[in-house]
Amino acid sequence: MNIERSPLAVAFPETPAIGGATPTVARAGYKDWGRCDLTLVELAPGTAVAGVFTRNVCCSSEVELGREQVRLGKARALVVNAGNSNAFTGYRGREAVEAIMAQVAEHFGCEPSDVFVCSTGVIGVPLPQEKAREGLSAAFVSSPCSWEEAALTIGTTDTFPKGATSSAMIGGTKVNLVGIVKGSGMIAPDMATMLGYIFTDAAVDADFLQSLLGAASENTFNCITVDSDTSTSDTVLAFATGAAGNDPIVSVESAGADAFAAALHDVCRQLAHLVVRDGEGARKFIEVAVSGAVSDASARRIGLAVANSPLVKTAIAGEDANWGRVVMAVGKAGEPADRDKLSIGFGGTWAARDGQPLPGYDEAPVAAHLRGSEISIEVDLGIGDGRATVWTCDLTHGYIEINADYRS
Amino acid sequence: MNIERSPLAVAFPETPAIGGATPTVARAGYKDWGRCDLTLVELAPGTAVAGVFTRNVCCSSEVELGREQVRLGKARALVVNAGNSNAFTGYRGREAVEAIMAQVAEHFGCEPSDVFVCSTGVIGVPLPQEKAREGLSAAFVSSPCSWEEAALTIGTTDTFPKGATSSAMIGGTKVNLVGIVKGSGMIAPDMATMLGYIFTDAAVDADFLQSLLGAASENTFNCITVDSDTSTSDTVLAFATGAAGNDPIVSVESAGADAFAAALHDVCRQLAHLVVRDGEGARKFIEVAVSGAVSDASARRIGLAVANSPLVKTAIAGEDANWGRVVMAVGKAGEPADRDKLSIGFGGTWAARDGQPLPGYDEAPVAAHLRGSEISIEVDLGIGDGRATVWTCDLTHGYIEINADYRS
Repeated sequence: MNIERSPLAVAFPETPAIGGATPTVARAGYKDWGRCDLTLVELAPGTAVAGVFTRNVCCSSEVELGREQVRLGKARALVVNAGNSNAFTGYRGREAVEAIMAQVAEHFGCEPSDVFVCSTGVIGVPLPQEKAREGLSAAFVSSPCSWEEAALTIGTTDTFPKGATSSAMIGGTKVNLVGIVKGSGMIAPDMATMLGYIFTDAAVDADFLQSLLGAASENTFNCITVDSDTSTSDTVLAFATGAAGNDPIVSVESAGADAFAAALHDVCRQLAHLVVRDGEGARKFIEVAVSGAVSDASARRIGLAVANSPLVKTAIAGEDANWGRVVMAVGKAGEPADRDKLSIGFGGTWAARDGQPLPGYDEAPVAAHLRGSEISIEVDLGIGDGRATVWTCDLTHGYIEINADYRS
Repeated sequence: MNIERSPLAVAFPETPAIGGATPTVARAGYKDWGRCDLTLVELAPGTAVAGVFTRNVCCSSEVELGREQVRLGKARALVVNAGNSNAFTGYRGREAVEAIMAQVAEHFGCEPSDVFVCSTGVIGVPLPQEKAREGLSAAFVSSPCSWEEAALTIGTTDTFPKGATSSAMIGGTKVNLVGIVKGSGMIAPDMATMLGYIFTDAAVDADFLQSLLGAASENTFNCITVDSDTSTSDTVLAFATGAAGNDPIVSVESAGADAFAAALHDVCRQLAHLVVRDGEGARKFIEVAVSGAVSDASARRIGLAVANSPLVKTAIAGEDANWGRVVMAVGKAGEPADRDKLSIGFGGTWAARDGQPLPGYDEAPVAAHLRGSEISIEVDLGIGDGRATVWTCDLTHGYIEINADYRS
């Protein structure tokens, strides 16, 4: 299947080197596709790690192990396999992950639990241990690669490499952050999987990094949706090597904690948006801004109901200011709402206010807005102060083509 | 927009007359479409009524009023407007409904609360009172029509008229049931709306009818999904005229109560399936049978997660035995599941058992099954006795065409 580059793609940014984090790529040959498909990132001793994982209860062995390892708070290496998700493979899948952990631990002289493994691709086929072993052996002797090469290598049917960067001043020390992510491209017969990795040279306590990553994810990775389906392998990991030499950030009281939190949030938001921009068949990037809900959490659930609605997503694909479908989606969210206080807008222009079509509503600016590729939908509930923003893409023939027209 | 008849359409059945329920149709001209669009069913004095309504909190005035009226338990008339949903129209929409209730009540010499009104079609435009008044005046002097004509008239962009019938012996008396339903055709810029009506000549106590309808709906109307979106107007009403002269059915202890409950359930199931068969763009009818869950309710939620998954629905459209996507959907349901006890099958053939691909799995019978138009997906959780069956259709280019390719 030949998939064209997403029209919403953006260029890979200039990324700084991150001291203590060294990426390499190699060919394990998980699929017959003549490209690198194994990414190894060596992390300096003392690197702190945090992670958030899929809530899908049918998760992969990688996710089960990763959840346990994150609690220990330290990392020496990351391995990402592309082309085989190793999900739904029983004990043999777990053995394959443990073999990778053991091989890398021996090479770097660390604990197996310091080695994080992620896999994405075909489901139901145990990761071939021999290919993984040879791929790792090649990676051990490879030259370091760019973050863009790493971003390309963790991808599967992603249509462009996705990266983000940010920085912060901690005391007098500048720290850098680089993130890469793979998004919702499909590897048949698997589902879309999001894998994201953030590397920083800041010194950050692992527990505090975990709380920052969790908070940032709530408003970024957990506020995007392509098709409401949740992979069995979704994983975001953050690694802090400490190479910048700042005074360690251990709590909100630490110098620079706010600046670092903001930079981390910024990278997470950028990466989350990039996943949507590579959503299957996406032609339009949609921001749904919800205000006036009874709480922020309620606003987020309403926003996701709108963003997940096939009828809303097809309306945007059709450049149709169909506020009725937005009303429907708000109503089905199961959250407090008052039909007669609800207002709906597109691109900053209200189409309906207080439960009725706006008198004298001029559709021209809305129609112009909807012809663009960056769409905003505004929903005001009018019953509280809760607000949230979520992001999605439109639902197009491209989605059907990618997911139905080709046999796996 | 010209939409072809669904390939899953079935013929309208032979339907008996229902004593005490007399349908007529007329042209109110809610849209410029040269067809009847107002349905009036006169019901004999003493007719009992029960109803179930959308859970969408942004419901229409019709739904708000209908919920109140059902509590009174009696009906003398049903009016269905097609072409204007009257939803999201504030007080003017409510006034339009109350005007219809008053006009019909005056004509039949009953209470306004005995007159049930439903509307489906364009959102955000108050139902034109003058058109409704003239349409009703025409209906009052029209000859009775067939149930098929009534089914056609309540439809909007439905591609075929949908009806069902059943009967039961109550003591020595045969009672008949006829049901009609409109399904998920779209009236731009409205959302899909399901309106269903069941008429029986049985004598049934209104409270008991309500409990029977509620129970039947749980396993029929509430077990179907086309695209996970829930209309602001969904309504199912059951009317029992008593003309058959049976001893009234007042509780589960009454003679014939079981037979009547089974017949009502049968009609509800038939109607629910017909809605799916006219799902937008549907090419395949899909039954998802879930077993081995911790409870029936859990099984139903898992079944709906599978049936609502765009990735599962596109896989079936592509005739792809993609059990990995089914696993994903089970896992994201948020219900108890054990990855390593989960089994997935298609058309009665297991593809994966106990969390792993079935050794020696022969895809040939599955591939043959998926090439048909009646598809079954089996999910066994292996952790309990809960079971449920839900129904949906595939997600095709037709859905996108209907919902995105045409401007409202």
